[in-house]
Amino acid sequence: MLRSHTCGELGIAHVGQSVTISGWVQGIRDKGSLLWIDLRDRYGITQVTIETENASAEIIETARKLGREFVISVKGKVVERYSKSDKIATGAIEISPEKINILNAAITPPFTIEDETDGGDDLRMKYRYLDLRRNPVRKNLELRHRIAIETRNYLDKLNFLEVETPVLIKSTPEGARDFVVPSRMNPGEFYALPQSPQTFKQLLMVGGFDRYYQIVKCFRDEDLRADRQPEFTQIDCEMAFVEQEDILNTFEGMVRHLFKAVKGIDIPTLSRMTYADAMKYYGNDKPDIRFEMKFVHLSPTLSEGEGANTQKDLVKGKGFKVFDDAQLVVGICAKGAAEYTRKQLDELTEFVKRPQIGATGLVYARYNTDGTIKSSVDKFYNEEELKKWAVAFNAQPGDLMLILAGEEAKTRKALSELRLEMGTRLGLRDKNKFACHWVIDFPLLEYNEEAKRWHAMHHPFTSPKPEDIELLDSNPGAVRANAYDLVINGVEIGGGSIRIHNKALQAKMFELLGFTKEDAQAQFGFLMNAFEFGAPPHGGIALGFDRLCSLFGGAEVIRDFIAFPKNNSGRDVMIDSPSPIAKEQLDELQISLKK
Amino acid sequence: MLRSHTCGELGIAHVGQSVTISGWVQGIRDKGSLLWIDLRDRYGITQVTIETENASAEIIETARKLGREFVISVKGKVVERYSKSDKIATGAIEISPEKINILNAAITPPFTIEDETDGGDDLRMKYRYLDLRRNPVRKNLELRHRIAIETRNYLDKLNFLEVETPVLIKSTPEGARDFVVPSRMNPGEFYALPQSPQTFKQLLMVGGFDRYYQIVKCFRDEDLRADRQPEFTQIDCEMAFVEQEDILNTFEGMVRHLFKAVKGIDIPTLSRMTYADAMKYYGNDKPDIRFEMKFVHLSPTLSEGEGANTQKDLVKGKGFKVFDDAQLVVGICAKGAAEYTRKQLDELTEFVKRPQIGATGLVYARYNTDGTIKSSVDKFYNEEELKKWAVAFNAQPGDLMLILAGEEAKTRKALSELRLEMGTRLGLRDKNKFACHWVIDFPLLEYNEEAKRWHAMHHPFTSPKPEDIELLDSNPGAVRANAYDLVINGVEIGGGSIRIHNKALQAKMFELLGFTKEDAQAQFGFLMNAFEFGAPPHGGIALGFDRLCSLFGGAEVIRDFIAFPKNNSGRDVMIDSPSPIAKEQLDELQISLKK
Repeated sequence: MLRSHTCGELGIAHVGQSVTISGWVQGIRDKGSLLWIDLRDRYGITQVTIETENASAEIIETARKLGREFVISVKGKVVERYSKSDKIATGAIEISPEKINILNAAITPPFTIEDETDGGDDLRMKYRYLDLRRNPVRKNLELRHRIAIETRNYLDKLNFLEVETPVLIKSTPEGARDFVVPSRMNPGEFYALPQSPQTFKQLLMVGGFDRYYQIVKCFRDEDLRADRQPEFTQIDCEMAFVEQEDILNTFEGMVRHLFKAVKGIDIPTLSRMTYADAMKYYGNDKPDIRFEMKFVHLSPTLSEGEGANTQKDLVKGKGFKVFDDAQLVVGICAKGAAEYTRKQLDELTEFVKRPQIGATGLVYARYNTDGTIKSSVDKFYNEEELKKWAVAFNAQPGDLMLILAGEEAKTRKALSELRLEMGTRLGLRDKNKFACHWVIDFPLLEYNEEAKRWHAMHHPFTSPKPEDIELLDSNPGAVRANAYDLVINGVEIGGGSIRIHNKALQAKMFELLGFTKEDAQAQFGFLMNAFEFGAPPHGGIALGFDRLCSLFGGAEVIRDFIAFPKNNSGRDVMIDSPSPIAKEQLDELQISLKK
Repeated sequence: MLRSHTCGELGIAHVGQSVTISGWVQGIRDKGSLLWIDLRDRYGITQVTIETENASAEIIETARKLGREFVISVKGKVVERYSKSDKIATGAIEISPEKINILNAAITPPFTIEDETDGGDDLRMKYRYLDLRRNPVRKNLELRHRIAIETRNYLDKLNFLEVETPVLIKSTPEGARDFVVPSRMNPGEFYALPQSPQTFKQLLMVGGFDRYYQIVKCFRDEDLRADRQPEFTQIDCEMAFVEQEDILNTFEGMVRHLFKAVKGIDIPTLSRMTYADAMKYYGNDKPDIRFEMKFVHLSPTLSEGEGANTQKDLVKGKGFKVFDDAQLVVGICAKGAAEYTRKQLDELTEFVKRPQIGATGLVYARYNTDGTIKSSVDKFYNEEELKKWAVAFNAQPGDLMLILAGEEAKTRKALSELRLEMGTRLGLRDKNKFACHWVIDFPLLEYNEEAKRWHAMHHPFTSPKPEDIELLDSNPGAVRANAYDLVINGVEIGGGSIRIHNKALQAKMFELLGFTKEDAQAQFGFLMNAFEFGAPPHGGIALGFDRLCSLFGGAEVIRDFIAFPKNNSGRDVMIDSPSPIAKEQLDELQISLKK
């Protein structure tokens, strides 16, 4: 070993010992009579101090040759420092060197290897191996390692077996686009890379494995959004002889274990919200419930359930056409924001009118601290009417009511975005606070207007709720699934379902999704056939591991929680991949490129 | 949960309790007045006993509908058995049912779900989900799970970080054939699937990660031999600031930990053998040292080192042309095999003459228990000369000397096979006995006659021994590498090396391997550039995880230690993959099939 100790472990207890440490030169200060080298490795920084008066000419010469990021080993004595530093763990000691070996020289790195670097994203990606030397990036990956260990610990204790499922599988048209791999030994045929091990984990349940998990790479050939990767990692799990309640409890336990073991945080019991309520009160299926700010409906909507339809109409028929014509008039109450300036309100209006939000305007009503209410629609609504709004919003003096109107789905979505924006502006989305909950009772199907057919909302293997099965033919859109999402801080961290384990029901499902009998058999025959040989009731969940890690790390983007990520064009700029391959390779695979 | 207990946990302590168990019907016996159901899950088998006199009509009717592999749940009381069974863990009790629910029916499986099945390999592969229900197959995968856990435990304790490296990487012509993945977003360009994470783990060392491991899928598009899989799993490790000795010690520790933790076996310190000795005394680079039976040279060979060249010639010049013309005359002594019959000796001769062994014949000499020696070449060698052979072989009365002659490399290889065959015949290769050792000092390069160029014996990133570097130009074949293999019972379980961490040496290596400067830069420029920014000395190892599991399981083939293996044509016959893909997919990828 080219060291006796790491750069992170020496302290007062080692004073007087002869040691060897190795690492990278973080920095050098040369004061003539004294020369300091900060030596860094994964474990910390240790100061090497050379008193030029007493040091050998060789040591001084070597030390003065060093530059940032040189790799050296230093043999020397551990000495107590005169002036100790509490900034680093080894701050009580320094090394008085007897020998310095240059293990490798270094040219000047293209950006500084500091916690706050001067390197831009592109440069950091190209020299990822240098970026990995920076503490924040390394700590992210250490965190990832720790979460993986604790995930395995938890699941191992519950008798889950980690089973590796194949990476070279079969392409299926359902779901996202597959990456495919031409087979040389079977010309004209292709493997696909798995979007998830879904069918294999179900077959493991049919095979009696009872409880399965895997931390596994999955692949989707999608047009990449800012924070998507073509390859990503899932914590993939499945259990037999369970009902939805069992899965929710088991993985609630896992999430709480992870928060406790990794971050030392006690997470309370996870609350549950139906999909219907999530849409109604938060406008999306993964509400951030770190803060309340629920939607308040100012007029009844067609889509509300019967019981809910008791909301009195507080806005229509007063001559304000925008509200009168709207399918939905809905708002939020921003606590303590009544003193927002005109400029701030204009910003909010601009925010909701951005194309990706899509609202046509924003109505506001300030509940001033003096008890008066001033709104942007005073022309149409008098103080008495506005007071009724305030009651509906449960607004107090000092609060700001923000209201959108229009087509229902679009308006809910826009208000959902505004709610998150207000949450951010009011400091209600502390990244060190964690609100975890389940969203349950998802619809089984959603209608795709473009394709003019039903799509599976979760996936085609998801079981409808038994009590809704009779609606499959008459009203497919109303059928609820035994499907659930795990949401943390407004991010969908995981999703799963109780699966269909019956061949006839699975066949029915494929029929609903527009498969011909032949197509269903060709693509998923192996699974349906398996169901005939005694498939147990089963269900599971998959958690986005990259996303979970970034959430634990308090970051928005997953890229820095992946050792070697790809950019938004799916390109690894460090190794320059993808890249052209040799003609011989194409010939062997019996494929050719189109011009 | 559709059960209160598993089928493996109930015993006397539970007698009187009301329980629910779920599982598969392993078998039913119907004696009229008594009806037994053996209910199976992953954890065991529990007997359900119905006394038809006392049972409800509903229970009896349900029970008589059941067939093998039906999935049921049984609610009932735990009762002490009259006649207990010690064949199963739950043999002291049985369940007296109050309610039987059929959770899923089953058609008759195509083979029996028993430890010894009547299903052939092809059938078992097609219905892999049924094969997985069999105890031996499931136990193999449970063993695999356990080995993975203990591997992680060991490495975690030593501060190794598990880091996921990318699966979509870059194709390189060095090494085996890559699987490639067309990139839709970068038309005409391809990713490759990794044959190993080699360059990435080295970059992690450059990135200061210090100690890395990963249990990771790798891919090789090779023509599959009986026991190769296109996707396989490696325990992949790398360490910085180490020398060969450190790697050997660390992973010797891991192997010993695994044997202890998983199999309860104490493995002694691993012995070490040079590649040169392995070839000389065993004829191959992964000798099975569960038994001795070293090669004995009867005449000097050109390739032997100077010191070794003292072997007196015991065979040449006596008129036996086969020996006189041979580059090498070499044999083994089979202890206690002097009484082999003519038939057995003929079998051995046939064995060595098989095309894959390639010897032209076999010479034997029996050292009879009466002290006489009879050989198949008595015409040329008298008793006195044969006695000298016996001395060279260290043979005792009762032993059999087996001798091959011919061209050196071929003869060593053939004798190596004969040695293993004799080891098997003499019962010296007990699969429950484990002999682990290191083979070290591999040559850096081997000459490929076909390609007329040097190939890297391990891989192009392997470091030559510093003392041999001066031979790189003058005598490349004599340069030894800091490369090592871990061999267990004659199987290469792992291999690794100290890597080059210097740009100039790495460039030199590529030059030796026939790369142009431009090719080397285009393909491995990212690594060589990385070496300029302060790369630490580093090295590592990769262990074949599938092979390790099969070895621990005492099996010859890896297939049954993989949940969903592919057959020898790289085909998954269960899901029928690879398969044709849609024209739209090809079009999107801008590739076409050749006719």
